Amino acid sequence: MATAQKLSAIINGVMVGDLFSTIEAIKSRSAIAKFKYRVHNQWAGAGQNKSTVDTFYGAGQEQARHKPFVIEADEPAILLGKDMAANPTEHLLHALAACLTTSMVYHAAARGIEIEEVESSLEGDIDLHGFLGLNRNVRKGFQGIRVNFKIKANVPDEQLQEIVQLGMGYSPVFDSVTNGVPVSVKAQRL
Amino acid sequence: MATAQKLSAIINGVMVGDLFSTIEAIKSRSAIAKFKYRVHNQWAGAGQNKSTVDTFYGAGQEQARHKPFVIEADEPAILLGKDMAANPTEHLLHALAACLTTSMVYHAAARGIEIEEVESSLEGDIDLHGFLGLNRNVRKGFQGIRVNFKIKANVPDEQLQEIVQLGMGYSPVFDSVTNGVPVSVKAQRL
Repeated sequence: MATAQKLSAIINGVMVGDLFSTIEAIKSRSAIAKFKYRVHNQWAGAGQNKSTVDTFYGAGQEQARHKPFVIEADEPAILLGKDMAANPTEHLLHALAACLTTSMVYHAAARGIEIEEVESSLEGDIDLHGFLGLNRNVRKGFQGIRVNFKIKANVPDEQLQEIVQLGMGYSPVFDSVTNGVPVSVKAQRL
Repeated sequence: MATAQKLSAIINGVMVGDLFSTIEAIKSRSAIAKFKYRVHNQWAGAGQNKSTVDTFYGAGQEQARHKPFVIEADEPAILLGKDMAANPTEHLLHALAACLTTSMVYHAAARGIEIEEVESSLEGDIDLHGFLGLNRNVRKGFQGIRVNFKIKANVPDEQLQEIVQLGMGYSPVFDSVTNGVPVSVKAQRL
């Protein structure tokens, strides 16, 4: 593909020219690559709580949303909740699925690879002996997560696997979940 | 608190008797502690996709929801999205906030500690040099996450810190995010 065509192209819904402009902008001014994402969470009794997602910091300044997004959490009845929303561990699986998918289609777009459809099914194992403190040898978190992608794209088999590797290779949530993140926690009185 | 009172109590919205019944049930039949959580995600172009959360496996059998929950993801315009929903990294922060909060209030309930209000603000740092593949020494994922809790409870200062430690000590998402999880990824044609 000639460069002029490439830069005006929309591939996988991504404005490829804008993607390369972002890359060039970061190359010329490194500090704009630093982002800070935020949520504010409020408890609503038992397993119910909700997060509000609004501003973030990026490209050298505070960034506003046109409207805040609200994300709810609850637990199913079997885990003493009211089953009004997905539970926190399911939200983690959503974050992972969403990030692998977006990373895959953005990086494929940058390489001129067109993708028609992407679906994924994720399953993760948790043993409640951990959460309930019944066995110190059982971890509290996921013991393992399996991701199965189904991809529709007019590419040879080896490129299908390459597309998936782009997701795994560049996804911020995949890196965070597989390699771990330092988390500091403080508390004060309300 | 006498045992009979304790078991009929609702503390922090949690039926304490049901919590202890769950613990006793797991002690007598270990296999019911094994849970499998799932999401199914579908791409909708560029940074947009949504996860459907429905069944899970737990307490020795498949568990249905009365209705599936749908969770959306998108990217802000500055990251070439349509800004219709929180982005994947913000969903990860929500999962972490929600799980720390629920773990804290459940484990406090089991100890008879009443909590009136809980709020938390989370912020995490990402450097796009990682995601965009511009610098191999910069990680793709969160470099660090800061969690600030505000808690209203009629307890002495040291117990306020103990409450927060319960969240960190038992939360499945906190364990997953801080210590990492093995994630396997497969792909096939749709």
